[in-house]
Amino acid sequence: MTTVRVELGSRSYPITIGSGILTDVGERLTQLGISSSIALVSNTTVFPLYGAAVARSLSAAGLSCAEIILPDGEEHKTMASAERIFDAMLRARLDRTSVRVALGGGVIGDLAGFAASVYMRGIDFIQIPTTLLAQVDSSVGGKTGVNHPLGKNMLGTFWQPRLVWIDVDTLLTLPRREFIAGVAEIIKYGIIWDRELFDFLETQVQNVLDLDSGPIRHIIRRSCEIKADVVARDEREGGLRAILNFGHTIGHALETATGYTSFLHGEAVAVGMCAEAELARLLGIIGAEEVLRVRRLVGAYGLPSAIPGDIDLDLFFHSMKLDKKAVSGALRFILPDRIGNVTIHRAIPESLIRRAVEQAMTA
Amino acid sequence: MTTVRVELGSRSYPITIGSGILTDVGERLTQLGISSSIALVSNTTVFPLYGAAVARSLSAAGLSCAEIILPDGEEHKTMASAERIFDAMLRARLDRTSVRVALGGGVIGDLAGFAASVYMRGIDFIQIPTTLLAQVDSSVGGKTGVNHPLGKNMLGTFWQPRLVWIDVDTLLTLPRREFIAGVAEIIKYGIIWDRELFDFLETQVQNVLDLDSGPIRHIIRRSCEIKADVVARDEREGGLRAILNFGHTIGHALETATGYTSFLHGEAVAVGMCAEAELARLLGIIGAEEVLRVRRLVGAYGLPSAIPGDIDLDLFFHSMKLDKKAVSGALRFILPDRIGNVTIHRAIPESLIRRAVEQAMTA
Repeated sequence: MTTVRVELGSRSYPITIGSGILTDVGERLTQLGISSSIALVSNTTVFPLYGAAVARSLSAAGLSCAEIILPDGEEHKTMASAERIFDAMLRARLDRTSVRVALGGGVIGDLAGFAASVYMRGIDFIQIPTTLLAQVDSSVGGKTGVNHPLGKNMLGTFWQPRLVWIDVDTLLTLPRREFIAGVAEIIKYGIIWDRELFDFLETQVQNVLDLDSGPIRHIIRRSCEIKADVVARDEREGGLRAILNFGHTIGHALETATGYTSFLHGEAVAVGMCAEAELARLLGIIGAEEVLRVRRLVGAYGLPSAIPGDIDLDLFFHSMKLDKKAVSGALRFILPDRIGNVTIHRAIPESLIRRAVEQAMTA
Repeated sequence: MTTVRVELGSRSYPITIGSGILTDVGERLTQLGISSSIALVSNTTVFPLYGAAVARSLSAAGLSCAEIILPDGEEHKTMASAERIFDAMLRARLDRTSVRVALGGGVIGDLAGFAASVYMRGIDFIQIPTTLLAQVDSSVGGKTGVNHPLGKNMLGTFWQPRLVWIDVDTLLTLPRREFIAGVAEIIKYGIIWDRELFDFLETQVQNVLDLDSGPIRHIIRRSCEIKADVVARDEREGGLRAILNFGHTIGHALETATGYTSFLHGEAVAVGMCAEAELARLLGIIGAEEVLRVRRLVGAYGLPSAIPGDIDLDLFFHSMKLDKKAVSGALRFILPDRIGNVTIHRAIPESLIRRAVEQAMTA
């Protein structure tokens, strides 16, 4: 069991990573001084797998627990689902000392975190992420959000959890495609921050794909350390935190242009990283050999690297400009100059972006 | 023109109070370095009075402005109204550098502030309060919120404005009953913090009721100073800030038990202050003479001090225990030991509370 600390002054919190620790969470909460009612938010996929174990652990620690089970899927990450959580909590008379526990992937974490930040102007919040993507990315850093018909994560808050509790054993029940999509975000950490992590991912492909506990815990811990480090330096995305969006400018546009049906988020990020690395090469920022290593690693994990040839390019560019991170329509790209370091670039000619995208299509 | 500063580190902001300053707001925003698009949120009562002047001022300062006009009334302080604001902003393609300006009373301020705190995880927010209650209370301190069928302000955030811009001339168009309701909160500041302000309110009754600009500006400034002082010491209501709720425990229960139709908020607070002062007397905390002064001043301004004799007492006590500020059903009261000072009390016997309430009914 290892602990990574996110340093944010009075809002600092630990991320605990271990194997088979799910049933220890109740005891850990009492150690944190939590003795009030719990609202356990989960979904119809994860709750049948792990809900009973978590509820028993909470109950054994003397914590009463209201269960709020939502349907599974990104299409339910809406204000309407947040309102279902509010209704259930108010009907259960949960007061402002109550604690929200999110058990599930990124959708449940973002949604339950948002609801926690807004319920009676904010209550404590615990993350128990059960997907690789949530464990290495969305559960850490305090971004919460719900989608709007006009854009993903358009509504949300910054609200830090009190604890992130990661049991890597939950990955054993995660669909393989989702697991691999999560690896994309770990590759991202290697490219933006840590060449050694990238090297490790290259040498450990088979062990990672075999869910070998040692390497898995290592890459999750390292990802959490990097995210914690970046978030501690720039909690509200004033500058540095933007580097976490490497691969996401093109990735998000790809998700939007394909109606969120063809690619999982991690898969779209994998494609985005390849295309954005190519853009960096076209700009003369990075060498061809480094870009090739990125594409090879993405491929080694079975992640996609190509933009579908039949994509609507106008819609694609349109949604890129509507992105939440675009400022007054101006695009911002996070580009690597080598594996292990990125910088922020603005005012890149659209013609060059088109060339990078078109090359990713023929790839 | 005077300025009161709310000291909250990097989130500090000025409150500017003046007469006839409404049309200077555009220039002031550019002084603050704001050059982005504005979403002006107002209601169907206030916008026809002051909307054009504010919009012209923004436009003269080179700021483009989208207008979002909501129906007037507490019944529209809902998540549905917040969603109308989100929709309008997304359709107008306002990005995360855009600025929300709230022009109106407490409902508009709380609602627009909530929407600002959640739009793209938070955008800048300016308050232009046009009611006395909003000027001395709700526009200062960063509490935002919307109501839920199961309780007022159950959903919300702490989100500080960048600027509060108070033009006392807007009080000239405020219905008299609403103006007087606002005075209740000023009396509250006198009781909880500032005996001199209380004295001033006693000697200046007629001038205040005549809307004499000098005394009005004085009592607004003093109220803002007190609220700024309290909020600076305890932004998120961990302790001290609770004193601002003097009169509100009983006041809120009264609003709920009468279905929000009989009393304006300030009127309910006036009744609550009298009943809670009486409770303090029953506990032997405060002398009868001081309580009488409170009741006299409330009466002098034409504010109510009695609980209607036909109120449903069971519903009344039930809603008191459901209050957001109640912790696990235990009531907390803010009680004066003299005019100018209050302390927080817990675990007061319900029988004594009933006696204070029943005395307020026969009063």
